Amino acid sequence: MSKVRVHNFAISLDGFGTGADQSMEAPFGHAGGRLMQWFMSTPTFRAMQGADGGTEGVDADFAAQWADGIGAEIMGRNKFGPQRGDWPDDGWVGWWGDEPPFHTPVVVLTHHPREAIAVGETTFHFVDQTPAEALELARSLAPNTDIRIGGGVDTVREFLAADLVDHLHLVQVPIVLGRGERLWDDGAGLTLEGLEERFDIESTPSPSGVTHFVYTRKPRD
Amino acid sequence: MSKVRVHNFAISLDGFGTGADQSMEAPFGHAGGRLMQWFMSTPTFRAMQGADGGTEGVDADFAAQWADGIGAEIMGRNKFGPQRGDWPDDGWVGWWGDEPPFHTPVVVLTHHPREAIAVGETTFHFVDQTPAEALELARSLAPNTDIRIGGGVDTVREFLAADLVDHLHLVQVPIVLGRGERLWDDGAGLTLEGLEERFDIESTPSPSGVTHFVYTRKPRD
Repeated sequence: MSKVRVHNFAISLDGFGTGADQSMEAPFGHAGGRLMQWFMSTPTFRAMQGADGGTEGVDADFAAQWADGIGAEIMGRNKFGPQRGDWPDDGWVGWWGDEPPFHTPVVVLTHHPREAIAVGETTFHFVDQTPAEALELARSLAPNTDIRIGGGVDTVREFLAADLVDHLHLVQVPIVLGRGERLWDDGAGLTLEGLEERFDIESTPSPSGVTHFVYTRKPRD
Repeated sequence: MSKVRVHNFAISLDGFGTGADQSMEAPFGHAGGRLMQWFMSTPTFRAMQGADGGTEGVDADFAAQWADGIGAEIMGRNKFGPQRGDWPDDGWVGWWGDEPPFHTPVVVLTHHPREAIAVGETTFHFVDQTPAEALELARSLAPNTDIRIGGGVDTVREFLAADLVDHLHLVQVPIVLGRGERLWDDGAGLTLEGLEERFDIESTPSPSGVTHFVYTRKPRD
């Protein structure tokens, strides 16, 4: 059965998946690169940049799992670009240059649908859909494969709230951000209370200081 | 040098040290016993109840460290009892019966000071003081020993915000509470942003499912 997976999703000790004051120059806001530092030394990240090498170990092992068996990604609009509202005619095709690291169809959730864009081996589909509808679309684009939920924070929270996630890899980074976007609640009353009842949860410490949490969905009735 | 220590302080994945809707019958609110389940099987907890036995292992090893070298505790009023405002003449001497598990002086922070109460080997001192003042008092009551900050959530947060804590043992329990009192912020703008700059942080997973975090204050200038 096709699984829905989240990988390499980093949060601070106080649960923020990104900091406050995001901008084009600071996609993680005041968090800067601190949430992804553990990731940047891994061979997986370096390969995304077209570089060799990297540090082996616990972090590398977890990081490497993000692509195996994945046939499509679903992401929120804010992961695709900094634009808000109607799409400007600015030639933006994402943060990733000529050859994005996905190499699969990518479903971008937006209230402003538009024509699909092909960039290298990746095609971005822009739809205004619920998580369940987007998942159905992703599965039709990539039958019999797993689907990755690529973020950002709101998108991951919405898929968890809708109980659509089978595998959640969280990386808890030992920093306290104080503000930003929290995974655990949307700041407007939606929380993930009781999430643990649906998952088996394991934690693994890394010498880098981060702690990897793997949430595995219990068998559904 | 006398250290200030926090032990066996449990929080949910989303950072709540206690649930919502606390009452006499539900001191942890809707969290019930879930935050302390890992603790109840330990020999340390069982000894507090006058019982033998308990389960050995990671949780037991951490739990056992709470008393070694401690000469006094500082706690918030809500840990001492459910009363609010002026103290009623109700004979309340805490939740712990004739012989509280502290066996040391205990400083209780309250906006309603009153005469000290001796219960068994424990004496409770009720003062309206800042964290730094209360720490000075505790050190005068128990010279050359370590001081434990016993909770609740607000009290631990205040001592951390004032940079008075040398050793913080957090136990992250794999549940999502959604509401309650959060360690990381007071819900009114006070956060612990940047806490990690002052501490070395280690994590240790336990077979029980909880993850132990030890924060060790870096050397002060």
